[in-house]
Amino acid sequence: MLGLMQNRPLLISEQIEFAARNHGDEEIVSRSVEGPIHRYTYRDCASRSRQMANALTKLGVKLGDRIGTLAWNGYRHMELYFGVSGMGAVCHTINPRLFPEQIVYIINHAEDEYIFIDLTFLPLVEAIKDSITNVKGFVIMTDKEHMPETSLPNVLCYEELMASADDQFAWPEFDENTASSLCYTSGTTGNPKGVLYSHRSTVLHSFGIRSPDGVGFSSQEVILPVVPMFHANAWGIVYAAAMAGSKLVMPGAQMDGKSIYELMEAEGVTLSAGVPTVWMMLLAFMNESNSKFTTMQRTVIGGSAVPKSMIESFRNNYNVDVIHAWGMTEMSPLGTACNLKRKHAGLPNEEKNDLNLKQGVAVFGVEMKIVDDTGKELPWDGEKFGRLLVRGPWVTSGYFKSDQSVVDSDGWFDTGDVSTIDKDGYMQIVDRSKDVIKSGGEWISSIDVENEVVGCPGIAEAAVIAVPHPKWDERPLVIAVKQEGSNVSKEDVIEHLKRSLAKWQLPDDVVFVPELPHTATGKLLKNKLREEYKDYTLSSS
Amino acid sequence: MLGLMQNRPLLISEQIEFAARNHGDEEIVSRSVEGPIHRYTYRDCASRSRQMANALTKLGVKLGDRIGTLAWNGYRHMELYFGVSGMGAVCHTINPRLFPEQIVYIINHAEDEYIFIDLTFLPLVEAIKDSITNVKGFVIMTDKEHMPETSLPNVLCYEELMASADDQFAWPEFDENTASSLCYTSGTTGNPKGVLYSHRSTVLHSFGIRSPDGVGFSSQEVILPVVPMFHANAWGIVYAAAMAGSKLVMPGAQMDGKSIYELMEAEGVTLSAGVPTVWMMLLAFMNESNSKFTTMQRTVIGGSAVPKSMIESFRNNYNVDVIHAWGMTEMSPLGTACNLKRKHAGLPNEEKNDLNLKQGVAVFGVEMKIVDDTGKELPWDGEKFGRLLVRGPWVTSGYFKSDQSVVDSDGWFDTGDVSTIDKDGYMQIVDRSKDVIKSGGEWISSIDVENEVVGCPGIAEAAVIAVPHPKWDERPLVIAVKQEGSNVSKEDVIEHLKRSLAKWQLPDDVVFVPELPHTATGKLLKNKLREEYKDYTLSSS
Repeated sequence: MLGLMQNRPLLISEQIEFAARNHGDEEIVSRSVEGPIHRYTYRDCASRSRQMANALTKLGVKLGDRIGTLAWNGYRHMELYFGVSGMGAVCHTINPRLFPEQIVYIINHAEDEYIFIDLTFLPLVEAIKDSITNVKGFVIMTDKEHMPETSLPNVLCYEELMASADDQFAWPEFDENTASSLCYTSGTTGNPKGVLYSHRSTVLHSFGIRSPDGVGFSSQEVILPVVPMFHANAWGIVYAAAMAGSKLVMPGAQMDGKSIYELMEAEGVTLSAGVPTVWMMLLAFMNESNSKFTTMQRTVIGGSAVPKSMIESFRNNYNVDVIHAWGMTEMSPLGTACNLKRKHAGLPNEEKNDLNLKQGVAVFGVEMKIVDDTGKELPWDGEKFGRLLVRGPWVTSGYFKSDQSVVDSDGWFDTGDVSTIDKDGYMQIVDRSKDVIKSGGEWISSIDVENEVVGCPGIAEAAVIAVPHPKWDERPLVIAVKQEGSNVSKEDVIEHLKRSLAKWQLPDDVVFVPELPHTATGKLLKNKLREEYKDYTLSSS
Repeated sequence: MLGLMQNRPLLISEQIEFAARNHGDEEIVSRSVEGPIHRYTYRDCASRSRQMANALTKLGVKLGDRIGTLAWNGYRHMELYFGVSGMGAVCHTINPRLFPEQIVYIINHAEDEYIFIDLTFLPLVEAIKDSITNVKGFVIMTDKEHMPETSLPNVLCYEELMASADDQFAWPEFDENTASSLCYTSGTTGNPKGVLYSHRSTVLHSFGIRSPDGVGFSSQEVILPVVPMFHANAWGIVYAAAMAGSKLVMPGAQMDGKSIYELMEAEGVTLSAGVPTVWMMLLAFMNESNSKFTTMQRTVIGGSAVPKSMIESFRNNYNVDVIHAWGMTEMSPLGTACNLKRKHAGLPNEEKNDLNLKQGVAVFGVEMKIVDDTGKELPWDGEKFGRLLVRGPWVTSGYFKSDQSVVDSDGWFDTGDVSTIDKDGYMQIVDRSKDVIKSGGEWISSIDVENEVVGCPGIAEAAVIAVPHPKWDERPLVIAVKQEGSNVSKEDVIEHLKRSLAKWQLPDDVVFVPELPHTATGKLLKNKLREEYKDYTLSSS
């Protein structure tokens, strides 16, 4: 027997219309690519999103068509988020930091009909234009005055396109499972893979991130998402902010510490979000300039593990709480957020900081479990670690144009991470599952060993990989870069590691190299190292 | 084109399992009907909810069967919420405050298979047992020791039923639109009507009420719902608290000011929720005993309009923020919540209190509009008032076993209220649409006039109704009860009203009566008055 409740679909268009109706005067402030600060309201944003939907309709864009964007965080990019998805087309955010050949692959694989481009990224597109000949047209995200000379064919000006369109548009109603947006994730192997979000997954994820046990924000909040809108939809903040009526502050292309700090102070920012690298720059600037925050209260940090010193610096020096969060492009992206519980309220800062090293508790909507190599579920004791599996309505079921399912028969998606979970539900990433070293039935975290190696005087950078071992199956090998002028030896490193690692966790060998290979986005390319060292004979074997 | 996200249903069973996994140690504290305080954890609650699902399965309960409850707020009632709905049956909460003949109608109309009864309500059921012969059995919500003598047939003991059941149960997965729970709403006319919620509507509503622009609660919160679980599912708080991992404090049968206050202090309650009557009792007790709150921060007040003196008393005397909220059983029930916006942060208490008189801004998921008699939409200017229509995924589409749709062709449900909405989205109820007086094209709020009449010295209670008028269609008539010993006259009342009402709003006549008719739940029975006075000839006609 079904309930007798209204069958209203969860749609992205309703997010911006809700903001316009109920928080119409609240501001969206953007540092524009052209230079000046731009400010308008949710009412304006809704109006221009409707204009965009009309303009796209005139261009012949239909339900399900992909529309690419190469753009910073700013109001025009927001209009595309709501205008493109709202009309039923798919907003495909392209990460400009990828290698050009990856961008070509992505645009062709997505079959983008039009691409919207911030001025900054014009040279990037011009350089690949002969490889993306299926694109019908390129829209430069500026006004007539700032339109550049370009070698691109079929070029349109964003503001001229807008000027030609009416701001009245009846958003279509359709199945909430309709595709809304597309992000490609580039691993360390193979071609990038497209994650195709739906209206349902986006709205439910917005409920999750906006809830107090996610990040939690209301119409009281002023949010500056440093995390780019081309990176997992800026963690979904733009959608959720509209649902909450929060003031949004968009940093545009200027992400250096000084620019971010000044924008935070000028606009009264209370909450921000980004990867550790960005906060390193911000904290360095604040330290050098002896600056303090006036309004900032919390910052969400994700994308990679947060160093303890960063949590300490924010909380102890600047009275800003860090919300350590974890997710994946495949998860919309929020999986966990490290919020303290009631019982932690009285803890001293030191213990709070330790707790914040964990990636946190699942947000309602995300189920997690950890399993061993045989798929057997492991206990939540904070010690046993295993492959982390997730499921939920905002987790991917497969990649765009791939007929391969990525979930097991019970619907679980393997995150590729290895983690512990404690009895309070706090999850902590231990390693990537392909990087973990499986030694005689025990698992050794390559990240744990790397962190210790990097702490050894004289070491600049290090990677720890598994190499085959006749008796133990795999054993750890350190590949390290020395600091300039250092004479650190293998023995020095091993001696240093003995202080913190158990005997069976100690690497069997240390190799020094002049440099380590990285991906376009700066991650260690361990698969390349594994390939290179696959026949390495451990000195202790 | 559909998105490629997991097709996971939104289910109530996942709410309690989520709490057990991630907030397993958090407490649920209940004042038991037998007397002592009972405390256990979400882990225990999940375990016993599974036991209940097993016990019901053994009794032959199937997907879609209705299971009635006549019970206070307490842990066993929670186990029924999650156990009954979780297994796919329908948890039918019966309001014991209705007239016995209404309860008979409801139980027979719902075709309840079993009814679970708190000790308190046993006499009530015994008195109607011969009229509800289709019920297969009655489960007394107590342990063997407290089992009473009873004339009911087929009686079971709750704890014995539980003891016979295993705590392992694989919650079934089914369509999220499956019916989960049933509440009857009793208007002033006709038979009670059943609102049939679904798992989807319940989970989405939980997201809404838990969001910062709803009520907003997290795992930091300690919540005492005074609003009964037999009244619109305690406003959904029980479900949403599980999703948030908030500590719950259940008051059982003792709702007097002293009991509520002592429980709040003993358990560190931070947030409460209930109707104005309850808070009147609490405030009276606190005032007499010169008590202060130690931990209370916020209280949600709904069910009827909140008097300004109550908002002032909470904020000015006790430093507790009032969240004025509005909804209906037909809306799960939350529609709006009166939270302040960023721009209101600096307002003096007096202005905040004034703002809190409004019922508030729509929670995302609820769309509102106001229309005139012809269905034309009215502006959101805070002045024009019209019939309030709503739609959204947790608003009813029709009543149980009725094939009559209650929504118009665009999906709007008429709330029966008349309200204004201002440009910031704040809605304020002006009257019930059947009570508003339509005088020469202008609408007069009967409630506004009643409030003024009651302010006249010598008046104890008053109703204002429309009576037919040859020229103006309708004109207001006051029907009032004098305070004992008062000699107040018609002229006194009219003279008093001239201070605050415009000339065209002044009632045409005042009739004094010894008493006014009320419903079982204490509301004025205006339809009875209208019937009685339908041929009344206004002295001024």
